[in-house]
Amino acid sequence: MTDQVDPTGQCVFCGIVAGTIPYAKVAEDAMTFAFMDIDPGSDGHLVVIPKRHSADLFEISADYLAATTLTAQRIAKVALSELGADGVNLLNCSGPAAWQTVFHFHLHVIPRYHDRSKDRLELPFEPGMPADAEAIAEHARLLAAKL
Amino acid sequence: MTDQVDPTGQCVFCGIVAGTIPYAKVAEDAMTFAFMDIDPGSDGHLVVIPKRHSADLFEISADYLAATTLTAQRIAKVALSELGADGVNLLNCSGPAAWQTVFHFHLHVIPRYHDRSKDRLELPFEPGMPADAEAIAEHARLLAAKL
Ligand SMILES: [Zn+2]
Ligand SMILES: [Zn+2]
Repeated sequence: MTDQVDPTGQCVFCGIVAGTIPYAKVAEDAMTFAFMDIDPGSDGHLVVIPKRHSADLFEISADYLAATTLTAQRIAKVALSELGADGVNLLNCSGPAAWQTVFHFHLHVIPRYHDRSKDRLELPFEPGMPADAEAIAEHARLLAAKL
Repeated sequence: MTDQVDPTGQCVFCGIVAGTIPYAKVAEDAMTFAFMDIDPGSDGHLVVIPKRHSADLFEISADYLAATTLTAQRIAKVALSELGADGVNLLNCSGPAAWQTVFHFHLHVIPRYHDRSKDRLELPFEPGMPADAEAIAEHARLLAAKL
C-alpha cells in the first residue's frame, strides 16, 4: 500500500498527526508535521514527516518528499537562531538494515553543537579506510546502467 | 555568496561538475550530479549535489534542494535493485559541527546491508537514554515560537 492514509490504524506517526498520541509538536503545514524525537541524540532533535502515510523513501511520492525536505530546511535554520546550534544533520533511515524502526517516512533534523554536553552523536564510521577503487568503479557502473 | 557558481574556483565539487576533477560519476540531470564517495561507508555509498554552488542546507535554494533530494530517492531505489541493498540512509552534514568537510551542499546516499562485509556503519548514538522531558518541551517551545 503506497502513499495511503495508514490503512491499518496502527501507525504511531499517523496517530501523532491525528492528535490521538501526544507528542511535543514543533510545526505543521498542509503536507507536513514536525515533532520532537523522544530519544534525542542532541538538544532539539526532531523529526519531520509527511501527513500522508508512506513507509519509507522507496514509497513516498515526490511531492511529499520535497515538502518534507523543505520543512526540515526551514526548521534547521531556526535551530541555528533559536537553539544556538552550530550545524545540523538531516538523516533518513529507510529499511530495518538502515536503522528504521517506525515505518512511516521521517526525516531526522539533528541540531549539532561543539558543546558536547548538548550533543552525543559520534561519527557512524571512521573515515580514511584504504579505498578499493575497483569496487567503487564497479558499484558506479552497476548504478549508472539503470539511471 | 549564496547559490552562485563557485565564486572562488576552489570548490572541489564544482570541479567535479565541471569535469576538471575526475570522479566516478553515477548520474546527472539539469540540476543535479551524483558520484561515488571516495571513502565509502558501505558498498555503493555516493553523494548527490546541486550543480549550482551553495555551501550547505542553510544556503541552498528550495528548488535545488528538492531536485537533489528527488535524485537521491531515484538512486536509492536503484541501489536496492542493482546492488542488492537491504535499506538506505540519506545523510546531510551542514556545518563543521555536523561533520561537513566539503562546503558544497551534498546528500549522502548510503546503501545498507545486513551483510556486514558490505557495510561498516554503526549507530551514531545509542538509543534508550533516559529522556529529559522538560528539556525536550523547552526545545520544542523555542523552535515552535519561530515557525
Ligand atoms: Zn503512518
Ligand atoms: Zn561548489
